[in-house]
Amino acid sequence: MKLKIIIPIIAEEFVEPTRKEVERLASSDVEVEVEKLEYGTASIESAFDEMLCAPEILRIAGKAESNGFDGVFIDCMGDPAVDAAREVADIPIVGPASPSMHIASEIAHSFSVVTVLENVVPLIENLATKAGVDKKLASVRSVDIPVLELEDEEKILDALVSESKETIDRDGAHSIVLGCTGMMGVAEKLRERLEEDGYDVPVIYPVGLAVRYLELLDSLDLAQSKKTYMEPPKKERNLLENLGDK
Amino acid sequence: MKLKIIIPIIAEEFVEPTRKEVERLASSDVEVEVEKLEYGTASIESAFDEMLCAPEILRIAGKAESNGFDGVFIDCMGDPAVDAAREVADIPIVGPASPSMHIASEIAHSFSVVTVLENVVPLIENLATKAGVDKKLASVRSVDIPVLELEDEEKILDALVSESKETIDRDGAHSIVLGCTGMMGVAEKLRERLEEDGYDVPVIYPVGLAVRYLELLDSLDLAQSKKTYMEPPKKERNLLENLGDK
Amino acid sequence: MKLKIIIPIIAEEFVEPTRKEVERLASSDVEVEVEKLEYGTASIESAFDEMLCAPEILRIAGKAESNGFDGVFIDCMGDPAVDAAREVADIPIVGPASPSMHIASEIAHSFSVVTVLENVVPLIENLATKAGVDKKLASVRSVDIPVLELEDEEKILDALVSESKETIDRDGAHSIVLGCTGMMGVAEKLRERLEEDGYDVPVIYPVGLAVRYLELLDSLDLAQSKKTYMEPPKKERNLLENLGDK
Amino acid sequence: MKLKIIIPIIAEEFVEPTRKEVERLASSDVEVEVEKLEYGTASIESAFDEMLCAPEILRIAGKAESNGFDGVFIDCMGDPAVDAAREVADIPIVGPASPSMHIASEIAHSFSVVTVLENVVPLIENLATKAGVDKKLASVRSVDIPVLELEDEEKILDALVSESKETIDRDGAHSIVLGCTGMMGVAEKLRERLEEDGYDVPVIYPVGLAVRYLELLDSLDLAQSKKTYMEPPKKERNLLENLGDK
Amino acid sequence: MKLKIIIPIIAEEFVEPTRKEVERLASSDVEVEVEKLEYGTASIESAFDEMLCAPEILRIAGKAESNGFDGVFIDCMGDPAVDAAREVADIPIVGPASPSMHIASEIAHSFSVVTVLENVVPLIENLATKAGVDKKLASVRSVDIPVLELEDEEKILDALVSESKETIDRDGAHSIVLGCTGMMGVAEKLRERLEEDGYDVPVIYPVGLAVRYLELLDSLDLAQSKKTYMEPPKKERNLLENLGDK
Amino acid sequence: MKLKIIIPIIAEEFVEPTRKEVERLASSDVEVEVEKLEYGTASIESAFDEMLCAPEILRIAGKAESNGFDGVFIDCMGDPAVDAAREVADIPIVGPASPSMHIASEIAHSFSVVTVLENVVPLIENLATKAGVDKKLASVRSVDIPVLELEDEEKILDALVSESKETIDRDGAHSIVLGCTGMMGVAEKLRERLEEDGYDVPVIYPVGLAVRYLELLDSLDLAQSKKTYMEPPKKERNLLENLGDK
Repeated sequence: MKLKIIIPIIAEEFVEPTRKEVERLASSDVEVEVEKLEYGTASIESAFDEMLCAPEILRIAGKAESNGFDGVFIDCMGDPAVDAAREVADIPIVGPASPSMHIASEIAHSFSVVTVLENVVPLIENLATKAGVDKKLASVRSVDIPVLELEDEEKILDALVSESKETIDRDGAHSIVLGCTGMMGVAEKLRERLEEDGYDVPVIYPVGLAVRYLELLDSLDLAQSKKTYMEPPKKERNLLENLGDK
Repeated sequence: MKLKIIIPIIAEEFVEPTRKEVERLASSDVEVEVEKLEYGTASIESAFDEMLCAPEILRIAGKAESNGFDGVFIDCMGDPAVDAAREVADIPIVGPASPSMHIASEIAHSFSVVTVLENVVPLIENLATKAGVDKKLASVRSVDIPVLELEDEEKILDALVSESKETIDRDGAHSIVLGCTGMMGVAEKLRERLEEDGYDVPVIYPVGLAVRYLELLDSLDLAQSKKTYMEPPKKERNLLENLGDK
Repeated sequence: MKLKIIIPIIAEEFVEPTRKEVERLASSDVEVEVEKLEYGTASIESAFDEMLCAPEILRIAGKAESNGFDGVFIDCMGDPAVDAAREVADIPIVGPASPSMHIASEIAHSFSVVTVLENVVPLIENLATKAGVDKKLASVRSVDIPVLELEDEEKILDALVSESKETIDRDGAHSIVLGCTGMMGVAEKLRERLEEDGYDVPVIYPVGLAVRYLELLDSLDLAQSKKTYMEPPKKERNLLENLGDK
Repeated sequence: MKLKIIIPIIAEEFVEPTRKEVERLASSDVEVEVEKLEYGTASIESAFDEMLCAPEILRIAGKAESNGFDGVFIDCMGDPAVDAAREVADIPIVGPASPSMHIASEIAHSFSVVTVLENVVPLIENLATKAGVDKKLASVRSVDIPVLELEDEEKILDALVSESKETIDRDGAHSIVLGCTGMMGVAEKLRERLEEDGYDVPVIYPVGLAVRYLELLDSLDLAQSKKTYMEPPKKERNLLENLGDK
Repeated sequence: MKLKIIIPIIAEEFVEPTRKEVERLASSDVEVEVEKLEYGTASIESAFDEMLCAPEILRIAGKAESNGFDGVFIDCMGDPAVDAAREVADIPIVGPASPSMHIASEIAHSFSVVTVLENVVPLIENLATKAGVDKKLASVRSVDIPVLELEDEEKILDALVSESKETIDRDGAHSIVLGCTGMMGVAEKLRERLEEDGYDVPVIYPVGLAVRYLELLDSLDLAQSKKTYMEPPKKERNLLENLGDK
Repeated sequence: MKLKIIIPIIAEEFVEPTRKEVERLASSDVEVEVEKLEYGTASIESAFDEMLCAPEILRIAGKAESNGFDGVFIDCMGDPAVDAAREVADIPIVGPASPSMHIASEIAHSFSVVTVLENVVPLIENLATKAGVDKKLASVRSVDIPVLELEDEEKILDALVSESKETIDRDGAHSIVLGCTGMMGVAEKLRERLEEDGYDVPVIYPVGLAVRYLELLDSLDLAQSKKTYMEPPKKERNLLENLGDK
């Protein structure tokens, strides 16, 4: 299987770590290509950022199938432009949030998402509602650390442990979904720290999950329903060709 | 009150009719400026179209406040980029769909939306869910006429009458929301035709409603909550300046 | 537009202040007539009170249209007798609660109502459910001050500030709806006090909102659906003529 | 147990038949007193009627406890004034609709209500929502026969059979609740007719159910929660003493 | 009426106390037979226990009708095997949980269940959802005392008082359902203790409620819908005859 | 990965076909062991059957981990004993229904299940509710063919095509989940037949999906939450050792 991973921002710094992470997490026979945007925003922490990154996501996603890819992963917990991309492709396309919430709902009575900033809490709650699993959502909490400051692993881990315990003790969460795909390499440690303190709950790192989810869909010859994501009617569209010098 | 109406597509043909319609429907002391996009799509009939039109919507909406406007209306039933625009403005910003659904829910036990194409049915259902009024939504039906063919008023009216009756008889609708802002000048006639046939239900034309809704918010000094639509953190964003020759 | 405001209680003391408040809040071309009940209760703080005030509300509302009014506002947060009044009128009739909840749901991800007494909390929660926006309702809290003791503005304001913060911090409210129409003149101050303390959320005063809502409906030629609020069949009814000396 | 049955209308004609029906359906040691209203409406087929009958319902219900009754049944499928009556009494008070819906939800996967007129369909749907069992409600249908024309048993039975089959075949109902307490003596026959035609579903006659429900509550020393139905604060109330010559 | 009470565990110790409790709580003309399992588990505190007790529950329930019983009560708050038993009987069969939740929802705006161990909290929440009253469920809390240690009445009562207050103060409960049928003889005391401390809410002891519920169904000639609980098709089944020496 | 497939019935005839089907559908490095029950029922078409098969399912599932298996699939669309089995294992355990519904909800706006007999429709609806995706469930329909008569592939395929079209046209389904794991080898043909007739929707065969789902969980080191599925307390349990001669 050949997978296109879209880092839906213009920052360079997540490209290499993500490639390594995905190669570590995917099946050995999965070929991965990671691509970031030329035009968009440095990170996604608002609906505003999502909208500004959407066109380029669609440019890349729209060419994936003809470029020989079997699936596309749009690597941001807002699932930006996923619905739109699904309309212009027959290969499976996923973001990390909705599949993670569905699997969290399957393996636990309830789940919470622990994300970066308060800004995106309503966006993530809305994604749970659109996914149809809002009744399983115990809460969305944030650690108050911006995406581009996630490199301090100790700080983020401490904050995740603390907020995860709150979601379990106060909100009734039975599983935890990491709320930003930039939270790399901490899921296992969070799981261990929680278990040491008596909190035996699954911790889902949405990047690994999304990649394996695409493999699952591919192996079963499944993709998004064309009844839901109908092909857009032909018409004049002039944004992408007027973007940059392409 | 000074209102910015964004026709969120690149087609010219809705600009003048919309200006006239809004001037007819707004209070006499409302000053209206209608603006279409330079870059986007000729009409919006998919999530794909919405995403390609979003950046320019945000460019216009983002400058409205400093340009002296008191409110912004994004004139498309997908409410494209409304959430994002609300993050970058303190003046009230609305689309037509969500306010229309809320008012339909207030004045009737249930409502249906009759829209253009089957393609957008899931989008509109998702809007009702996000607005929190999905329990009031009886159905979304389509007349199977593309946006750019809405000029044949007799054809569209006949189709609207027929589908509206179905929503009332089969789906239990107690009010009708027109599902495309391009359906200009037919709401009153639809209402009359339905009444003649014994269907005495309100018919909401979302353009008039949205404009009056902005007036209401303005008069009460209300706007979107900055707790929901927090200001996006500062960061590098390079899409808009790389769009076209601006 | 000519508006009938029904103060749905027998106490005199809200008539003049309400008239002033409505005249301040309505459009300049709106003509207002305020009328209280002859028979009913001194205030409404229970379903029991609502039921005892309903007949006179209906007497007044039922005559409004033939008396030349274009809309009726029943001025109590229980929306007493609104459904019944809508059955016997073709002009739009609203209470303050349901429209306020719909607008709070439109401009914010969630809302809370801060009302007078614990007694009416279930009533207000039931109104949110009937309005179809219960999923947007974060909580209903009370300040534990009876309606007829609302004159001490400083006391009520302090209590509102305190409870509003609780709804935001603990219940996740993104906007506040004042839960009694007798809470006059405090909405702006509450909004300011909250903003000073870092809580930047809309505060809705339902009286102003309801009046402007009626103006909106009137301007769009909308009223309650006669499919929902069907005209009651003719039959013997003897309560109103046996009430008092009329 | 001593039961007060309130026929919440001014028509005389249901008093004797109801007394007989209740005596047939109640336990042998239940003492029954049936009382109709002096002031109200001839039947209840709208929210308007409910509101006009409410004051006298409350007068009777409010005196029941001191008059030695152990429970009150307000005999109309709109459950008129039940919430209000519960606030002014410590003995259990029920209407027929909400308990019937709860028991239908217990013994079947889903239920439908078949009522008299389309006018009351939204009222009954709202009752199901308030009762918390709206997810169990398959549909509310009407036979289009007014309350005061229910004496033609053959006609009503045929109509009930026909609509009940529709609720089962089309709406997915697994049990039937008769939607007007005036539908006396037809439940068993409807059940038989349906069974003969291969529809083996429970049919609930709400009058019998409500009476037995009160017996159940009484035997378990249960009544409405005073946390939900708090005692109304003392205040001036002048409606009941100004009603008629009392 | 002749009632079969199934103590759905193999422990002997609840048989006699339950017989006495049921005889105290049932109508005087109800004949009661209590039977425990030969094969199963010593108590039910998990889905695992429920499944191991189900076959014998079905053996006993399946023979009840031909043995002359008019109703069956399966005496455990997990309502184990109730759905299955209803498929193989025409007489009414209930567990304690679902009917108690429905009646709690009828007499109060909301309810909480206070049960034995945290292990069964998700099971009880799922029962509320299946019963269709999850919106009325304020919370499920546990006292952390295993079923077989419920004999220390003082300890259990103190724990129930404490947790019940939490459900009222923090979760918004307006009534309490005891969450284990082994909590015998404490409901009235809990009710009194709560009332003394200013918490005037109904307390439901599900055993008494279930027995009276069966009497109600029997008196109205009601039983589970055979549309929901269809008779299982004939086929080979070999578990029960291979169980023990039968 | 080593997988235990439990055919949760006593019939021999599905063992070999299932082994072949699973080997065809699983990754090449998955080792599969298929085991049927000694004691139970010939097929599962009721809650009654589920309960009679549960003990042996638990016997097999409970030993899987110590016998070196990495996951367990309980191969019946009622997901029988899945919750209970999860309590006594740390390796992931799934049934086919709940994961299929979650994935159908992810790739389509809505889904329908087309199952064997009307008997199991409520069971499957309840599973969707427990899974938290009931809002995505368009309908459950049946082809009226018993499990043990599923060998006539042409007949079953015709019936599936016909009912699937109904779910799409009338119920609004955007994807189809086969409602019995005995419907082997027809998913691709159903998908083709539907596509030929213009119905371009995903068709999910739950056996393949469940096996790949277990692989996904295993690859991510995920299993059921022990907060939801807590280990049952130690106690006397005597059913399994008294079953048959073991």
